[in-house]
Amino acid sequence: MSHIKIVDLVNNTKTLQEVTAKGWVRTFRNNQFIALNDGSTIQNIQCVVDFENTPEEILKRITTGAAVCVKGTLVESQGAGQKVEIQVSKIEILGDSDAEKFPMQPKRHSLEFLRENAHLRVRTNTFAAVMRVRSALSFAVHSYFQQKGFFYVNTPIITGSDAEGAGEMFQVSALPFDNTPRTEEGKVNYKEDFFGKQTNLTVSGQLEAETYAMALGQVYTFGPTFRAENSNTSRHLAEFWMIEPEVAFNDLDANMDLAEDFIKYVVNYAVDNCTDDLKFLEDRLAQEEKQKPQAERSEITLLEKLNFILENNFKRVSYTEAIDILKNSKPNKNKKFQYLIEEWGADLQSEHERFLVEKHFKCPVILFDYPAKIKAFYMRLNEDGKTVRAMDILFPGIGEIVGGSQREERLDVLVEKMKALGIDEEELWWYLDTRRFGSAVHSGFGLGFERLVLFVTGMTNIRDVIPFPRTPQNAEF
Amino acid sequence: MSHIKIVDLVNNTKTLQEVTAKGWVRTFRNNQFIALNDGSTIQNIQCVVDFENTPEEILKRITTGAAVCVKGTLVESQGAGQKVEIQVSKIEILGDSDAEKFPMQPKRHSLEFLRENAHLRVRTNTFAAVMRVRSALSFAVHSYFQQKGFFYVNTPIITGSDAEGAGEMFQVSALPFDNTPRTEEGKVNYKEDFFGKQTNLTVSGQLEAETYAMALGQVYTFGPTFRAENSNTSRHLAEFWMIEPEVAFNDLDANMDLAEDFIKYVVNYAVDNCTDDLKFLEDRLAQEEKQKPQAERSEITLLEKLNFILENNFKRVSYTEAIDILKNSKPNKNKKFQYLIEEWGADLQSEHERFLVEKHFKCPVILFDYPAKIKAFYMRLNEDGKTVRAMDILFPGIGEIVGGSQREERLDVLVEKMKALGIDEEELWWYLDTRRFGSAVHSGFGLGFERLVLFVTGMTNIRDVIPFPRTPQNAEF
Repeated sequence: MSHIKIVDLVNNTKTLQEVTAKGWVRTFRNNQFIALNDGSTIQNIQCVVDFENTPEEILKRITTGAAVCVKGTLVESQGAGQKVEIQVSKIEILGDSDAEKFPMQPKRHSLEFLRENAHLRVRTNTFAAVMRVRSALSFAVHSYFQQKGFFYVNTPIITGSDAEGAGEMFQVSALPFDNTPRTEEGKVNYKEDFFGKQTNLTVSGQLEAETYAMALGQVYTFGPTFRAENSNTSRHLAEFWMIEPEVAFNDLDANMDLAEDFIKYVVNYAVDNCTDDLKFLEDRLAQEEKQKPQAERSEITLLEKLNFILENNFKRVSYTEAIDILKNSKPNKNKKFQYLIEEWGADLQSEHERFLVEKHFKCPVILFDYPAKIKAFYMRLNEDGKTVRAMDILFPGIGEIVGGSQREERLDVLVEKMKALGIDEEELWWYLDTRRFGSAVHSGFGLGFERLVLFVTGMTNIRDVIPFPRTPQNAEF
Repeated sequence: MSHIKIVDLVNNTKTLQEVTAKGWVRTFRNNQFIALNDGSTIQNIQCVVDFENTPEEILKRITTGAAVCVKGTLVESQGAGQKVEIQVSKIEILGDSDAEKFPMQPKRHSLEFLRENAHLRVRTNTFAAVMRVRSALSFAVHSYFQQKGFFYVNTPIITGSDAEGAGEMFQVSALPFDNTPRTEEGKVNYKEDFFGKQTNLTVSGQLEAETYAMALGQVYTFGPTFRAENSNTSRHLAEFWMIEPEVAFNDLDANMDLAEDFIKYVVNYAVDNCTDDLKFLEDRLAQEEKQKPQAERSEITLLEKLNFILENNFKRVSYTEAIDILKNSKPNKNKKFQYLIEEWGADLQSEHERFLVEKHFKCPVILFDYPAKIKAFYMRLNEDGKTVRAMDILFPGIGEIVGGSQREERLDVLVEKMKALGIDEEELWWYLDTRRFGSAVHSGFGLGFERLVLFVTGMTNIRDVIPFPRTPQNAEF
């Protein structure tokens, strides 16, 4: 008889059937009650062992972490907390787990300890829930775009172009590192490298995605991107997954509409499809909040926060309006900001974004029309000659979750901008071709997937929402 | 009035409505008929220009590749080949395309030329169709696993582990290449590198996925993987996308069932959802076949081939049976094989796989129970002590499309194997933990996504089914 997944057992109303379940022991109480979990759900199935008729050497091996196969009868549970349980007729130990050595004890571990055991932390309720929600959100991303007629594009991970310069890049090479071939000038001779040139890990698939949008109309990427920035924060990873839609004929307004609609869809998908896991994570967060001073505690629960996002429009505010609000704000006047806002043109810091989102508007904010000089070369210049059609979406607790823009579609304006910034036209010949041949208004944005998972799960460190985080000094596993 | 996608226009039966369409001119005939395409479908919408009332300077700018916005009335078409067309009342040139300079002329280009213009080739019918099918197949992959209750896992791209040794690896570094810091022994000092150790691009997410399968039960990866092998063939890429499901409690038989069911699902999804594109690609392939000598032509069309896969069971054959068949085969007896099969234990070459699939069985073949010594360390040893529970799926025209196995779940057997092969136990401490704590039978496989796209689209070079191929001496774009 093949086994049934626990997610299909815990809500099963067809009692008195013979069932087989396989999973890992979470706890074993009173030599009688196994809480068995197989990862298919946050819920355990209670398995009641007939300890009087089970050999002592088997009972001893029913330890936390052990893999077991249980056969028995599904019956209505007498205990609290579950509808059904298994009256065990036969139990087989598939794999032992030495109770003294197994690092995942049935108690609360620190997140730091769990990060060092990233290969085992997914056996805890918290991380299993986070990773199931992450999986559901991934599928929601694909479902949303596919339903809307977007095409998924895999832009290259290894790139010969470092033109976007969105951050420090990792270099990729197949040369012998200890003894690299050299040119006559003593530089590394990349002609002898695998690709015949210097190559890096991508920081964004946008430029390549634009070439596809100008052919297929609506496209999106969803893949890993990299930053070699030495940022040891709870919001940065060296390797993270990014979603980048790009749409021909969309202007900035359509781009904002798309981003807002998209975020609401994926959040709603999680709320609808991850009920048990989100409830668990809501409770976890509430526990964590209790340990904070009263003043720092969140006023709303995790699900209230998610529903708030779904039910309210994101506030759209121009950069210029935002600067006015910030200049006249109490923390600016009282010199509480670390970086005081003195004039138009200032780059916004995290403290300013948080003020706008969390104190002033108390909802997600879309800032748009930023000063050209603090934004990337490919953003469309407005008629005022000093702002560009950029937009950032700011979320409570997370900060920037989306960065996007309408792209500069005019070849002459784009080339002039690149010249001013010293970006090599030769290297981006293919990108400029999209403006040479059948150019059109188009827009897109990038959403850091882990920040979305952070927001939806209520976790507070980005290292806890990706299976094996990559950060400075850390590439274990 | 916002524009309507061409995929929603060509099959629209509500004629006499006013519509706006945006797209790129494929051809412009008789100063009157624009074939307009926006990438949403292989089909163009015919736009009939009232040339007598359209200024000459506009007509001149309606060139192949130009982006235009067309307003007019949707009417029943008088011409052959389309149901409806647009009677244009207003046309706006959004972006010009110099007919003499635009590389994508309305004629047949060589695939080699198109590869050099990978940023524009997706504006051709062939590549747009291939990339739409690729996108649909990607979604089918996610849909299949999510429906079955699998969780998507993003295993790391940058890895500190090179233990699997499935091929030559690319190294990743943030050190200054021209002047790397050195240890006292003169070696590169990786302690000063970003991760504090030597790191590479992953060749497989399997080992990490196994740790997740032993917690969440059923998981799959779908991400980029890398090989620094200097293989300039039509079947190899340095960067390609791989799908790797891993399932706790599955033995090799269940693994084969999963692989076969999965492949049939995704192929069927493409057949159902990419009808127009596959019909186009079928015709393209038929044209290509005509240029081959009669004896080399395929006997069946693309869709016949896909339907054959759907309707027939994959033939399951043990390695030992396969060796017997090959030893007694005509090409072996007549010494037509380059590598003659002389004894049990020989590694199978492409010529042998092709013989089995294309000549002997004439259907997809699953070979299983290979000699241990030609397979990876983590595959489960059979009771015979010389074969392992490995399986490869071989496809006509493609060769190996899937490689998988039941994994060695016994700690002592695994450690002994690693010792014999000189694989560092210390480095794989976390992998061995899955066998130390609650080990269980589990299995998985890897499917090279581009080989699947190659098979479904009928293309013959793997560089033509990924947007920007990475191969030796080539990392353009």
